[in-house]
Amino acid sequence: MVLMNEPAKHGLVRIRFDLSYDGTEFAGWAIQPAQRTVQGLLQDSLSTILRVRINLTCAGRTDAGVHARHQVAHFDLAESIWREFEDDLLRRLARYLPSDVRVNSIEQAAPGFDARFSALRRRYKYRICDQLVGIDPLERVNVLNWESPLNEMIMNEAGALLLGKHDFAAFCKRREGATTIRALEQFSWSRDESGVLVADVVADAFCHAMVRSLVGPVIAVGEGRRPVSWPLSMLESGARSAESIVASPQGLTLENVDYPEDSELAARAVATRKMRELDN
Amino acid sequence: MVLMNEPAKHGLVRIRFDLSYDGTEFAGWAIQPAQRTVQGLLQDSLSTILRVRINLTCAGRTDAGVHARHQVAHFDLAESIWREFEDDLLRRLARYLPSDVRVNSIEQAAPGFDARFSALRRRYKYRICDQLVGIDPLERVNVLNWESPLNEMIMNEAGALLLGKHDFAAFCKRREGATTIRALEQFSWSRDESGVLVADVVADAFCHAMVRSLVGPVIAVGEGRRPVSWPLSMLESGARSAESIVASPQGLTLENVDYPEDSELAARAVATRKMRELDN
Repeated sequence: MVLMNEPAKHGLVRIRFDLSYDGTEFAGWAIQPAQRTVQGLLQDSLSTILRVRINLTCAGRTDAGVHARHQVAHFDLAESIWREFEDDLLRRLARYLPSDVRVNSIEQAAPGFDARFSALRRRYKYRICDQLVGIDPLERVNVLNWESPLNEMIMNEAGALLLGKHDFAAFCKRREGATTIRALEQFSWSRDESGVLVADVVADAFCHAMVRSLVGPVIAVGEGRRPVSWPLSMLESGARSAESIVASPQGLTLENVDYPEDSELAARAVATRKMRELDN
Repeated sequence: MVLMNEPAKHGLVRIRFDLSYDGTEFAGWAIQPAQRTVQGLLQDSLSTILRVRINLTCAGRTDAGVHARHQVAHFDLAESIWREFEDDLLRRLARYLPSDVRVNSIEQAAPGFDARFSALRRRYKYRICDQLVGIDPLERVNVLNWESPLNEMIMNEAGALLLGKHDFAAFCKRREGATTIRALEQFSWSRDESGVLVADVVADAFCHAMVRSLVGPVIAVGEGRRPVSWPLSMLESGARSAESIVASPQGLTLENVDYPEDSELAARAVATRKMRELDN
């Protein structure tokens, strides 16, 4: 398998930017013909402003309707163009982009940085309002309404059983030639000050639709419709089944991406590439 | 002038409900033909569920695009119908209504209660993000983006000059036969933990478009385009001028409505009615 996203070539600089978006009106991150995507919109905007074709790589390729409070992406650019635009690019993007996507910082990346392969871990949150009256309309953009009460104690138990490094094939939409082995570091549930149920889901990386495929079965446990061990038995089956439940994207937000210290960025990217290849 | 909204008649009970809404997709509270309004949607929903025509009165008739975190309304209903539906009405409304309006409680009102005339005061907040990169897309539903930095110190000064009981005709869209004398109790600016600039605006009652007509000129002061005394000079002119600035509805939210103790509700309603009549 050939992995793209090599370090920046000679004469090019690598630009890192941090962004947030309301995913409601996007068909996800990844560019698709005739669809409004985050990648497509940003590539078009940057290409227009910089007058050169831009290709983006991000840390977490969110699905249609999934939000990001702190996504990270990079692109490579001729150094001369960067020097021309660097002082003004943040302001120009702020004016150019629609209000459902905001670039919060943009700067030359530290050497060896790769938004995807240098990342140590991704943190998502999944928010559910299970109260009778439903979520406050002013807070609803990234919260799912659920009509029956959920028991977060048993949801926590069910989630804890899945922690660790496993083949998460049962919780992934299969992509040809891609490994489904991941290290799930956290999958815990708590209630915020408004009573909204929030899942913290952290892993080194996630496969396609993995967070929502983990959340769906645990909701069934929280409703009492399935035993606490049900998600674990799905994991152990090693394959996606007809009983898979993919939770709605509305409740899911990519909260942040962790990277190592600057001195470790390149080594981390090399190690991640090697690991993904070995696993296949 | 004949004021409607008398106490509930014999055989009827008065029902109070508390609600919140995202005003973005509403043409305001007040019912209008062929428009999606909060009052129209709620009257239709309640009439369908209760199988009897319902007419609503609210505490703050918000304009198109203005939000409410805590609006209060009432309607009168035959006691027999109320007894039939009271246990289940909150759940039915939660399922029936779209996600941009939520009824948070519904109950028989204390004697003498009138959502409009018993109110002691209304509190609105106006939120503005004046940071370069703009407001977080996940928080933007009730925040206005502003492209230049605002100085909240001088905005506070300008607002403080307007406090007290005055004829606010300069800051109101005139309604035939309605007084524009109001007591402005608070008009202060502060920044929340994200740096968003928030105006707290409190009065016994507000005239049509009054909060936004107060906020608009103070933004001009905060930008340094007008002197700190400019809003006061508008007030003193006693009439709406061509220079009036009505701030966008997106930033405005009705936060809550204060009522007196139950024993004072009826007296407060009588006093308010008398005052509004005398002022005209």
